[in-house]
Amino acid sequence: MTALPPGSVIGILGSGQLGRMLAIAAARLGLQTHTYSDTSGPAFDVSYKHTLGPYDDTQRISAWANEVDVVTYEFENVPLQAAAAAAALKPVRPGARALEAAQDRLAEKTFIDRLGIPLAPFAAVNSKADLEAAIEKIGTPGILKTRRFGYDGKGQARMARPDQAQWALDEIGNAPAILEGFVKFECEVSVIVARGLDGATQFYDIPLNTHVDGILATSTVPGPLPPNQVDRARDIARRIADELDYVGILTVELFYAGEDAGSPLVVNEIAPRVHNSGHWTIDACASCQFDNHIRAIAGWPIAPTTRHSDAEMTNLIGHAANDWPELARETSTCIHLYGKRDARPGRKMGHVTRLKPLTT
Amino acid sequence: MTALPPGSVIGILGSGQLGRMLAIAAARLGLQTHTYSDTSGPAFDVSYKHTLGPYDDTQRISAWANEVDVVTYEFENVPLQAAAAAAALKPVRPGARALEAAQDRLAEKTFIDRLGIPLAPFAAVNSKADLEAAIEKIGTPGILKTRRFGYDGKGQARMARPDQAQWALDEIGNAPAILEGFVKFECEVSVIVARGLDGATQFYDIPLNTHVDGILATSTVPGPLPPNQVDRARDIARRIADELDYVGILTVELFYAGEDAGSPLVVNEIAPRVHNSGHWTIDACASCQFDNHIRAIAGWPIAPTTRHSDAEMTNLIGHAANDWPELARETSTCIHLYGKRDARPGRKMGHVTRLKPLTT
Repeated sequence: MTALPPGSVIGILGSGQLGRMLAIAAARLGLQTHTYSDTSGPAFDVSYKHTLGPYDDTQRISAWANEVDVVTYEFENVPLQAAAAAAALKPVRPGARALEAAQDRLAEKTFIDRLGIPLAPFAAVNSKADLEAAIEKIGTPGILKTRRFGYDGKGQARMARPDQAQWALDEIGNAPAILEGFVKFECEVSVIVARGLDGATQFYDIPLNTHVDGILATSTVPGPLPPNQVDRARDIARRIADELDYVGILTVELFYAGEDAGSPLVVNEIAPRVHNSGHWTIDACASCQFDNHIRAIAGWPIAPTTRHSDAEMTNLIGHAANDWPELARETSTCIHLYGKRDARPGRKMGHVTRLKPLTT
Repeated sequence: MTALPPGSVIGILGSGQLGRMLAIAAARLGLQTHTYSDTSGPAFDVSYKHTLGPYDDTQRISAWANEVDVVTYEFENVPLQAAAAAAALKPVRPGARALEAAQDRLAEKTFIDRLGIPLAPFAAVNSKADLEAAIEKIGTPGILKTRRFGYDGKGQARMARPDQAQWALDEIGNAPAILEGFVKFECEVSVIVARGLDGATQFYDIPLNTHVDGILATSTVPGPLPPNQVDRARDIARRIADELDYVGILTVELFYAGEDAGSPLVVNEIAPRVHNSGHWTIDACASCQFDNHIRAIAGWPIAPTTRHSDAEMTNLIGHAANDWPELARETSTCIHLYGKRDARPGRKMGHVTRLKPLTT
């Protein structure tokens, strides 16, 4: 296992806030960042170099890959051909298998199901007949979700009754989809695991996540899971990461249904990347998720994921970022703004992490 | 007092590692950085924009100042004309008075002396006759120091005996100088104070600093000062900052001679900027010195300077940075590398901060 020395260039596909925070982490370790994106974004401000180009332009991707030492990505919808073009020249970490598993909900759920890990019931939907059969099998309420390109609650239609089938199909534009049955749960949590090139793993503490309008609102540590469920949740994440021969930060979102449920922990979805629910690690851990993602893909050892403070991360969505003067007056509040110009509704403009002395 | 909103541009004179860490802190707060430097340096990698130009090119400085919202600097040897050219267009923080006081050892010591703050005995030296008179007054051992452009022990000659006068003058190139008498002390410490545009101050914990070959080697918190001396040291720094109507991070290096000394605390020198002895604040505080410098010059409130962990910062000088693979395997060690190519002897290549649970 060869570690990339300081001065090496990390290639990042994508230029959003995750890329920005990855670029900062890379700089801290003496590594340079060359981002590739189809639009100018927050990561460009702190990157050594950037290339503007379409994600499906494999020639451009190849030219870019030639200039970097390792390739990673900040979003899971990288075209597989682009990843393959890059992989022909330089290591892509996490690898193509993680992308394949994560960018198609049907592939993702099939993969996790095969590992024997509990999931909400699901069925493929390519037509109205499929949907009617799926409702027959799974029942309502349920959620119709596009197989691809869904995030922050987009590309989803919640069905309360079977007679909403046509409405739901229209709502998601009749795209290839899955029907997912509702799972009764107490709360949502996420496991953020760092897996090194040598296969060693380290887990961050598991936060409680709350959502508003389908978008993550807060992540809080310590979270709600009792120790035995923490072990179980980590085991789920480890099995997924091992199966994918994963390198970097992997996030597994879980529903927690309580100790007495048949399946206390049910996988919601996985993200083959650093994750919004891990932003608190920047301020509450010596080594944050961005640091460990860069370390992993550069072949460095994973740093300990221990937490020195309790923390609550709150997203600043849309106009909430305009409250920066008040937030700047709060004590023990770490402000992170992503440098985006337009505070459109639903847009992640920044986040704050409120720190408290360590309790557990 | 108007605070600069996110999206504003921070102009930084200088492109070294201090500028690099300032640029990262600015990015976190949603502010952009435009650096100005006469050489390409570590700060350029993480800056939104940079201008290469001589520091004494006031026309170029003016053009640059027109593109930024506030001007700061990462080194104290900014030509005063350059600072004045910038100040004619945009606020320069800290201001020209701090630069004047800090870039000439004679002006610095005269200023501090007038405040009634203890200093090592000193005298101006412009000729051999001056030096002989100074030796007569102060005695030996002593250190002959150039008035300007000294750092990391450069531009200094240590004199053990009066007959070394000519050697010492030759050693510093017969530049305008001061002779400084030796002060007996137990250890060196530094006060790092953040002062806002509103005059409010916050102090970081005072580290113990050790040096090797005139270059800072380690800074450790908690430091050695008993509480009453901490109060006294902070008072010294506050008076200096207030007198300069200072905005940003100010560093005051002090010799500590022990509780029973006539002057337990003696000022060694001041630096009108973020300082190497404050690098541990990145990893051991929710808001580090770089964060608070940016907040101050942007007119934001100063964030609390409380520490969540004990810390020891160790500089990586020259080839010490080649130990990164071993350092990366250490637990609780935060690695910071500055992206410099050549590990020349005496060159600051990076630093590590080793964290421990909070004791005091």
